[in-house]
Amino acid sequence: MSDQRTSFHMTPDQFRKHGREVVDWIADYYERIESLPVLSRVEPGAIRAALPADPPRDPEPFAAVLRDVDSVIVPGITHWQSPNFFAFFPANASGAAILGELLAAGLGVQGMLWATSPACTELETHVLDWLVDMLGLPPAFKSSAAGGGVIEDSASSAALCALLAARERATGLRSNESGCDGRLVAYASSQAHSSIEKAVKIAGIGRANLRLVDVDEAFAMRPEALAEAITRDRAAGLVPCFAAATVGTTSSNAVDPLPEIGRICRAEGVWLHVDGAMAGTAAVCPEFRHLQAGLELADSYCFNPHKWMFTNFDCDCFWVADRAALVRALSILPEYLKNRATESGAVIDYRDWQVPLGRRFRSLKLWFVIRHYGIAGLQHHVRRHVELAQAFARWVEASPRFELAVRPPLNLVCFRHTAGDAFNRELLERLNASGRLYLTHTTLGGRFVLRLCVGQTNTDERHVAEAWRMIEAEAADLEQRGAPRERE
Amino acid sequence: MSDQRTSFHMTPDQFRKHGREVVDWIADYYERIESLPVLSRVEPGAIRAALPADPPRDPEPFAAVLRDVDSVIVPGITHWQSPNFFAFFPANASGAAILGELLAAGLGVQGMLWATSPACTELETHVLDWLVDMLGLPPAFKSSAAGGGVIEDSASSAALCALLAARERATGLRSNESGCDGRLVAYASSQAHSSIEKAVKIAGIGRANLRLVDVDEAFAMRPEALAEAITRDRAAGLVPCFAAATVGTTSSNAVDPLPEIGRICRAEGVWLHVDGAMAGTAAVCPEFRHLQAGLELADSYCFNPHKWMFTNFDCDCFWVADRAALVRALSILPEYLKNRATESGAVIDYRDWQVPLGRRFRSLKLWFVIRHYGIAGLQHHVRRHVELAQAFARWVEASPRFELAVRPPLNLVCFRHTAGDAFNRELLERLNASGRLYLTHTTLGGRFVLRLCVGQTNTDERHVAEAWRMIEAEAADLEQRGAPRERE
Repeated sequence: MSDQRTSFHMTPDQFRKHGREVVDWIADYYERIESLPVLSRVEPGAIRAALPADPPRDPEPFAAVLRDVDSVIVPGITHWQSPNFFAFFPANASGAAILGELLAAGLGVQGMLWATSPACTELETHVLDWLVDMLGLPPAFKSSAAGGGVIEDSASSAALCALLAARERATGLRSNESGCDGRLVAYASSQAHSSIEKAVKIAGIGRANLRLVDVDEAFAMRPEALAEAITRDRAAGLVPCFAAATVGTTSSNAVDPLPEIGRICRAEGVWLHVDGAMAGTAAVCPEFRHLQAGLELADSYCFNPHKWMFTNFDCDCFWVADRAALVRALSILPEYLKNRATESGAVIDYRDWQVPLGRRFRSLKLWFVIRHYGIAGLQHHVRRHVELAQAFARWVEASPRFELAVRPPLNLVCFRHTAGDAFNRELLERLNASGRLYLTHTTLGGRFVLRLCVGQTNTDERHVAEAWRMIEAEAADLEQRGAPRERE
Repeated sequence: MSDQRTSFHMTPDQFRKHGREVVDWIADYYERIESLPVLSRVEPGAIRAALPADPPRDPEPFAAVLRDVDSVIVPGITHWQSPNFFAFFPANASGAAILGELLAAGLGVQGMLWATSPACTELETHVLDWLVDMLGLPPAFKSSAAGGGVIEDSASSAALCALLAARERATGLRSNESGCDGRLVAYASSQAHSSIEKAVKIAGIGRANLRLVDVDEAFAMRPEALAEAITRDRAAGLVPCFAAATVGTTSSNAVDPLPEIGRICRAEGVWLHVDGAMAGTAAVCPEFRHLQAGLELADSYCFNPHKWMFTNFDCDCFWVADRAALVRALSILPEYLKNRATESGAVIDYRDWQVPLGRRFRSLKLWFVIRHYGIAGLQHHVRRHVELAQAFARWVEASPRFELAVRPPLNLVCFRHTAGDAFNRELLERLNASGRLYLTHTTLGGRFVLRLCVGQTNTDERHVAEAWRMIEAEAADLEQRGAPRERE
């Protein structure tokens, strides 16, 4: 924005005008979102075909761009913010978060160092300390202790950073210098998120050195299987360095037994990282904190406000109990970044807590959310979502045709029609093709399972009730046509 | 946003109101930004001390949050968007980009898969193809060839992804499976960005296996030194896998000789990654494309629209000539992400082109910028910035007290007072303490050098002229007080 009339920049007054247009566009979008098909119906290549082959030589009016958002972009959107979005885990958002993101973009701060915007660093540290209290996390994760928190883009990146710190610790700080030697081993349950395998590959440890530990009938890690694997690897001359446990797996929201896993990792000197990407938000309600019992034995932990805490993607909160271990693994200090504040040792430079160097003013939108809702508002909506999912689970249980695949601990219901995998596959395709809701699937115990996750900001009783009505009706229709035969 | 009056959510009407308030706040901010000290003056801990120790129990009015932005946050901001910001490389922004980011936050799309929002993926592919034409990049980088582009958060992440693809290629696709074995070697000049060293550590290759190749008097890589290092390593039984060259180093904007480096890498089967993080934007003007001659020999390339292309952080454009090599290195496909579009092979799933799984609608703001400015508008401002920097360099050269450390190829001027390192250090501290501009430093040839980079969106002739006037005046004042003695 410039006061130069001759420039190509948007003037502040033009920005005020167009800014209002975009704000109104978004408000309108949320008002009409339930009228749009949740899952986009475009065919591959359709969006590109509607875009000009060549970039514009000359400036275009802002109105033309907004017009194309409506005509070209919106048909290609799968509406994550629709209250009828029940797929994957949610990536919910809220007015407060959207405006926090807008302000962060307007300030245009790059907070790689404390000195490059002290408020960017200090607000982040402060909000992550707040969250330790809000979620009942171990006090060791606070910056006033030896730990501290940072915002990463995703739980994938948090897992990678934790693994790198673990790798350095297990090798006596030699892996950064000399590289990996094929002897390090990592552990996660067979139900752990794919990001653990990805991190193990990236870090040069190798997928063959990731032990996928067996799970029990609730799809939670069997701690005795972890202990046996570690013993076996040590006997083979390998170096166990890292274990990932999950509070709320992606497939089924299974909760690994942290107290037992934590005790094993402590005894063996293995870094324990806990991933609570979605379920972590539930801990804002004291009645759900039992799920994270044992977290005080973890070396690191993350959860994603961008999943269920009304904070638009991306926003992953990551804590370590020993910040020095993390910084040692990721620190780089070239001449052009040296400055007095860094040299004083009195400040945090978040560049050393993440893979990239640069960073946005990441905490601003989360601070907006916490202040807008207050703890009471967050609790209200989390409780409501859990209640709605539990109600849905009861309807499934009461139905003669459907069954639960596992008992849902929180807001994710895994269920299936009793007619088998092919039937459930077909049911899922037809439901999603209707445009009126979006569900995804997983496999549990080798069987195809439907997943319904209640977590979008505006999902209310009527949406969940209507989803169940549609699922029952579509299944009845499919039964009448004759169930498809098994493909497996 | 919800229509439930009883909920804690912001209603669409409240969002319209508060959205206008934030839009106006940003417009006001840009109107007054020159009155604010560029480098924040707060002491460590001051921001946290002004924040409440505990998070709010109950919701707070939006006005209270915005009030605290003014009173608590703004004093802790180092104003990257001030036209008097000449430090590091810029992270510039524009009205169009800010509104694109706002819209992306409002849509709240998570584009990990094509299916989770086809427009998110296809617009990104399309805009990155546009940029190949706009910047005169090798056609092999286009998605219509065997290559393709993706938006990463930063050049650090792009370098890491390139290195991982290189690692897999050099090991016959064994490094992901079996881990690193200590034999891989990477190369970069001694002036390469710290992110290369960080990537080499993260990937398990080890800093000891990164050869920092010698540079010439212009701080550009000496290709014969690269060739010798590769030969030496091969003779020692090591496996050269990756070389990073830079178009515009962070220290001094030095340009590595890509044609020679590229020929060596091709002959040796070494993956060549080229980092044009800031300087890459200059190629929108044909007269600056000579700097990237030889890029057709590269396996991958990145530049950051979030530095000099008026697109707020984060936005790094990353291309590969062989997309299959990148996807092989980063692909993971758990059951819960399987879908028909992915299985058809007809679509791009950008999850496989990056470290994290999830991703924002990253291309939206870049599309807004390209359409708002057109190629003509981008060229206008890039040329203007280069002219201003070149004028500044002439003033330095004409001064009896100052000298250029190197001849500036584009918009970064490296210069120093002739009185030595301690004098220049003191000069820098005093200039930055004035609050009226912000410069940073580097060392070149062992000597302390001031850096002035012209790239903030609204930096115009008067800002650069005033910067030079202040530098001369502050130096004259310091000379009169007696130059500080050398500390080195």
